[in-house]
Amino acid sequence: MQEKVKSWTTEDLNNMETRYRASFINSLGGFKSVVLIGTEDREHQTNLAIFNSLIHLGANPALCAFIIRPDVSRRHTLENIEDTGLFTVNHLNEDIYVKAHQSSARYPKEISEFDATGLNVEYLNGFSAPYVKESIVKFACRFVQKIPIELNGTTLIIGEIVNIHIPEIYVESAGFVDIESAGTITVSGLDSYHKTQKIARLSYAKPDKEPEKI
Amino acid sequence: MQEKVKSWTTEDLNNMETRYRASFINSLGGFKSVVLIGTEDREHQTNLAIFNSLIHLGANPALCAFIIRPDVSRRHTLENIEDTGLFTVNHLNEDIYVKAHQSSARYPKEISEFDATGLNVEYLNGFSAPYVKESIVKFACRFVQKIPIELNGTTLIIGEIVNIHIPEIYVESAGFVDIESAGTITVSGLDSYHKTQKIARLSYAKPDKEPEKI
Repeated sequence: MQEKVKSWTTEDLNNMETRYRASFINSLGGFKSVVLIGTEDREHQTNLAIFNSLIHLGANPALCAFIIRPDVSRRHTLENIEDTGLFTVNHLNEDIYVKAHQSSARYPKEISEFDATGLNVEYLNGFSAPYVKESIVKFACRFVQKIPIELNGTTLIIGEIVNIHIPEIYVESAGFVDIESAGTITVSGLDSYHKTQKIARLSYAKPDKEPEKI
Repeated sequence: MQEKVKSWTTEDLNNMETRYRASFINSLGGFKSVVLIGTEDREHQTNLAIFNSLIHLGANPALCAFIIRPDVSRRHTLENIEDTGLFTVNHLNEDIYVKAHQSSARYPKEISEFDATGLNVEYLNGFSAPYVKESIVKFACRFVQKIPIELNGTTLIIGEIVNIHIPEIYVESAGFVDIESAGTITVSGLDSYHKTQKIARLSYAKPDKEPEKI
């Protein structure tokens, strides 16, 4: 590699135009999980919002978490989760990513992003937060904890995974879910969507041996 | 799609064998950011560890965060960050993912994962935490805050991004970094590594118009 490497300091970041900096810094996080989070308010008005900060927090109990930014549009998701204690997480695929992206537009609260984007509501197993019908891998969460991050007004929401729906053919014998075959996609930066192409799975790492492809 | 969908409840999760559940629940998070985090202790002993929970927290100030699990191996990273206040974040690419994966083996503290895996240390711009020389997109962080998550003993580490190094050709005019062209890869589950293939970038979403490919 003889590519010329450029370096940026804090001062360079401070001097960037706001949108340029947002795009640049968002790119540094690598490829990120991108999901649609479905909620309802107390009057069963549905809401759907796209998030690119979902993380795995633990397997026992099964916990996930994501960051809600302090803007008005995302507040509806936060309010609904606090009011009802429930949300769904729905993976994106290539058939729905444009509609999913559109859910980030600032719709007023009385308009459901399901209606605005044309994605379909689905209710499963009596869980009263809405799923995205077109999503292949999806699960339901019970709200467990909210952690305010005072540094920048964001909020970490933690949920316990209580119900999971996946076509059986994508679940392999040792519990691995082949989300690539299920069509799940990923995002980079704020707005760049990507399919994936598997390189390999690697065996559990031990000090005295090289990882093997499994 | 006529694939048979299977559902799992909390009880089903409780009945899973530990490793099966870990693999299954880790798969639900979608494609995740996977990075190597480089640190040093006070005696300049280097440490390198792989993490798949990096998230973007904010652009101004430029903040990222990741989860450290309560196991011994990862504790070295946490101790070093608390002792020195510094760490580096290094994207993975196809040339180094096997060595990067190997860094997750439980080496004793006196063995540096740089030496054990054959990845090379690099110091840049006087920053005293070690970078991975073979990583193409990388940045330095100053430790800002530690948030203990008492639910399961994990810890959220927040860093301010203070120095960034990227080959200039991958930075586009509006601040977007083409990390796919830079060779950055992603992970699913605990151990499945994937290249990406861009579908499209989409324009900023507004209520009154469809997103456009940009």
